[in-house]
Amino acid sequence: MAGAVWRVIRRDGVEGASVRAVAREAGCSTGSLRHYFPTQSELLAAAMRAVAERIDARLGDFRATRDSAAGHVEQVLQELLPLDAERRAENEVWLAFSARALVEPELRALRREVHHALRAVCDWAVETIAAARSQPLDQALESARLHALVDGLAVHAALAPEGERRIMTGVLARHLDSL
Amino acid sequence: MAGAVWRVIRRDGVEGASVRAVAREAGCSTGSLRHYFPTQSELLAAAMRAVAERIDARLGDFRATRDSAAGHVEQVLQELLPLDAERRAENEVWLAFSARALVEPELRALRREVHHALRAVCDWAVETIAAARSQPLDQALESARLHALVDGLAVHAALAPEGERRIMTGVLARHLDSL
Repeated sequence: MAGAVWRVIRRDGVEGASVRAVAREAGCSTGSLRHYFPTQSELLAAAMRAVAERIDARLGDFRATRDSAAGHVEQVLQELLPLDAERRAENEVWLAFSARALVEPELRALRREVHHALRAVCDWAVETIAAARSQPLDQALESARLHALVDGLAVHAALAPEGERRIMTGVLARHLDSL
Repeated sequence: MAGAVWRVIRRDGVEGASVRAVAREAGCSTGSLRHYFPTQSELLAAAMRAVAERIDARLGDFRATRDSAAGHVEQVLQELLPLDAERRAENEVWLAFSARALVEPELRALRREVHHALRAVCDWAVETIAAARSQPLDQALESARLHALVDGLAVHAALAPEGERRIMTGVLARHLDSL
């Protein structure tokens, strides 16, 4: 069912993902879909879980290689940026879900979970770079800084999709270089 | 009327700012309030304009001094971070408005305007630091990087208000230092 939510969002954006549209996509009645997602928020939470699983699967492949080159870290972090249509749709879900979590306490646990998962990727990135350069870094501070940068770039990309790709990759490269 | 919107958001959060609640605050009928704000989105846009004016007024005072010390730049940028209850309310409006602008094209012009105003502050910050250090910086890239960092910190602060204050100021100080 999360697959149907995802397909509708990918095609029509978050605004198109009504319970009715998702029911049509899944080939079931609106009533039976309400069994899975009684509210629009639960539908959005399901989409967020689908995005988290997709990112996790992509990152799992990367991190398993345990390569320590800075270029490898850059590649992994690029997976978090909305650099193509798929990742732009993921980003849109993340933003819409984050905004909804601000006003709906029952979404906050999942929002925190996603946040901590992304912070763990940043922890890994900073550790890997520090090890590659044999240079100690303030792990907690640099990880928080990298995480804020990546999330900020994602917010900006949602605002101006055209022309942001080059800026995002340039900013990320410069930042990793400056660590 | 924007004042009434702001007072309700400051007291009850974005979720509390219904047309009915704002009408009560302004001491007018829901019907007459609909004359000003036919939709919830227009109400949110008015709140965003109020936030932009508040930030602009605070920054105007700061920038008029034309002091070039890095510490001064840090103070100005801290005005953009949700470091107290007032700025947390501003941040909440900014996030809610940004999310709504994703799905409502008529809000995008104002969203872009706010984005460009904040980018201009980052431009000024990078220029000021480059001048103080007599060291050329890649202006466009560093400004985009600083802007992403500040917006990312604001997104994170909305998620975890407790304990984020020290991290935000530490990350900002480290970032300015590393430029």
